[in-house]
Amino acid sequence: MSTPLLEQLVEALRVLPGVGAKTAQRMALHLLERQREGGRRLSRVLAEAMDRIGNCAQCRSFSETEVCPTCRSTQRDRSLLCVVETPADQQAIETATGFRGLYFVLLGRLSPLDGLGPRELGLDLLEKRLSGGEVAELIVATNPTVEGEATAHWLAQLAQRHGVRATRLAHGVPLGGELEYLDRGTLAHAFGQRLSLHANGAP
Amino acid sequence: MSTPLLEQLVEALRVLPGVGAKTAQRMALHLLERQREGGRRLSRVLAEAMDRIGNCAQCRSFSETEVCPTCRSTQRDRSLLCVVETPADQQAIETATGFRGLYFVLLGRLSPLDGLGPRELGLDLLEKRLSGGEVAELIVATNPTVEGEATAHWLAQLAQRHGVRATRLAHGVPLGGELEYLDRGTLAHAFGQRLSLHANGAP
Repeated sequence: MSTPLLEQLVEALRVLPGVGAKTAQRMALHLLERQREGGRRLSRVLAEAMDRIGNCAQCRSFSETEVCPTCRSTQRDRSLLCVVETPADQQAIETATGFRGLYFVLLGRLSPLDGLGPRELGLDLLEKRLSGGEVAELIVATNPTVEGEATAHWLAQLAQRHGVRATRLAHGVPLGGELEYLDRGTLAHAFGQRLSLHANGAP
Repeated sequence: MSTPLLEQLVEALRVLPGVGAKTAQRMALHLLERQREGGRRLSRVLAEAMDRIGNCAQCRSFSETEVCPTCRSTQRDRSLLCVVETPADQQAIETATGFRGLYFVLLGRLSPLDGLGPRELGLDLLEKRLSGGEVAELIVATNPTVEGEATAHWLAQLAQRHGVRATRLAHGVPLGGELEYLDRGTLAHAFGQRLSLHANGAP
């Protein structure tokens, strides 16, 4: 590459997830050839987003304001609190389900080896919420990984200490999936947790 | 998405080639969660590149300076001039071949319907180069598309008018390809243009 600035741009684009050297070069040339204005706009928005988007003081999700619009909303059921690992997980639940309660975002999972303990996950903040008496059900929606399960266990104990009912997402065969291709762990779990089937179709 | 700035960032990222709504969201969340510094750096380099990278006055490729380092180089054979459509094509030839001549970048191909004529492709600049007497061979490396072929034809006539030898890249079966999966046009061309095979392996 004959211009150092272009080389720097290719290198800088590799910070994006799933973008390697080849894709980064294609992106850089595309912007220079056809999308200068779009590139300038991306630069502006990016700088602003990196500097101005912080975390909500109540739920720790991304927010430009001290408290995010979801936490401020008067349309939300404050007795339901759903705990997720990341804002992306929150977004997925918000899009897929009709959930109208509030969220609490851990921004990680319990992982002592990575230096992520209860303090880093803001569990003191969560504990204060639970002791406030407003929350009736804590919906634990951590990922079904080893660390996510450990976090879920921790959260269940926390809820119990404050007399709050804890629930977690159902595990089992994904809708539209085929048993033949399902991993053994999930299939064994779904088999063990089988539900009674009624003639009218309802469980 | 609960913050407008995050929505704007997702929208702005879609200017990148091959990035849809889902990928853009993943990229935005990744930057916010784990790569704030990388995001800031990308923003800075992007702004600088969009503003400072222009086109070389001699070869029209991307350059931060009036004349690009390749055109300024004293190590290059000035009697060979390779014409390509885009800087990406130039980069591909530079990486794959040992070519040590100079380039001329059209930044497009003859396409009257898109308003791309000889003037837009800088062919007046190219003509001046050819009439200078320094160029002995014009290597036409436009893409083997209908428009690329039309451009190649135009370039061949231009070279002829100035008494410069014009050559083009060989077409045929790609190395490592399988005849069974080759498109019919390429196979018919390669069959028609077959070369004599010598016992010592040289053509």
